[in-house]
Amino acid sequence: MKPDTDNWLDAVQWNADGLVPAIAQEANTGKVLTLAWMNREALAATVKEGRAVYWSRSRAKLWRKGEESGHVQRVRDIRLDCDSDAILLMVEQQGGIACHTGHERCFYQSLQNGHWVSVEPVLKAAQDIYGKK
Amino acid sequence: MKPDTDNWLDAVQWNADGLVPAIAQEANTGKVLTLAWMNREALAATVKEGRAVYWSRSRAKLWRKGEESGHVQRVRDIRLDCDSDAILLMVEQQGGIACHTGHERCFYQSLQNGHWVSVEPVLKAAQDIYGKK
Repeated sequence: MKPDTDNWLDAVQWNADGLVPAIAQEANTGKVLTLAWMNREALAATVKEGRAVYWSRSRAKLWRKGEESGHVQRVRDIRLDCDSDAILLMVEQQGGIACHTGHERCFYQSLQNGHWVSVEPVLKAAQDIYGKK
Repeated sequence: MKPDTDNWLDAVQWNADGLVPAIAQEANTGKVLTLAWMNREALAATVKEGRAVYWSRSRAKLWRKGEESGHVQRVRDIRLDCDSDAILLMVEQQGGIACHTGHERCFYQSLQNGHWVSVEPVLKAAQDIYGKK
C-alpha cells in the first residue's frame, strides 16, 4: 500500500511516457514564461524544494530550472487542470529571465502576417548566462 | 513546392502524433484558462477563423472551442516558444467560462498540504451549459 502522501501524485494523469506538461506563469507579471515537462519525480521534487524541477526530454534527466543559469523559478502555487493532465505553476522568476535564449520568456515569437516574428528583446546574451564554452 | 504561406506551419515542431500543446491565456485578466492540443489543421483554422480551434484527442476530431457551449475563444495573438514546440494563444473568452465543468478555467485545483483542492467556483452547471441529455 502506498503512503497517503503519494495520493496527489497518483491523481495526475501521466501520459504514455510518464510525463505531464507544466506551464510556468510569473506570479507578479502574469506572463506565461515556459512550457516544460515533468515526470513523477520532478513534480515531487518541485513540491519538496519549492522550486520548479522539470524532466528534460532532450537530456533525459531531471532539470532543476536555474541550476546552471541561476534563473530559478520559486513556486508559489501548483494547479492541476480539470482532466488532471496539465500543471500550472505560479512562480517568481529569479533574474527576470526564463528562457535559455536570454529572453524574458520562451514565448517571444508572434505570428504576424504569416510569419513568426521575434517581438521581445534578448535581455542577456546566452554566453553571458551560461559562460563561454 | 509548398506555397510560401505554409512556411509558418512548417516551422512548428509537431510531435510524433502531429500535435503541439496550446495554452490559452485570457488577454484581459491574464488568467491561464486551458491547455489543449492542436494539429496542423487546427492551427491553420485558428488563424483563418480568429477563434481557437483545437484537436480533440478523445474524440479524434477538430474541436471549435465553444461550438456547443458558445464559449468561443477569440484570438488576439498567437505565440510560439523558443523550441517551436508549444503555442500560447492570447484570447478573449466569450461567456467568461473556459472549462466544460463550468469553472472559469480548467486550472481550478490547487495543491494544498498534499491534496488537490478545488479553489475556484463553478460559475454555471455543466447541464446548463450543454443542455440536459
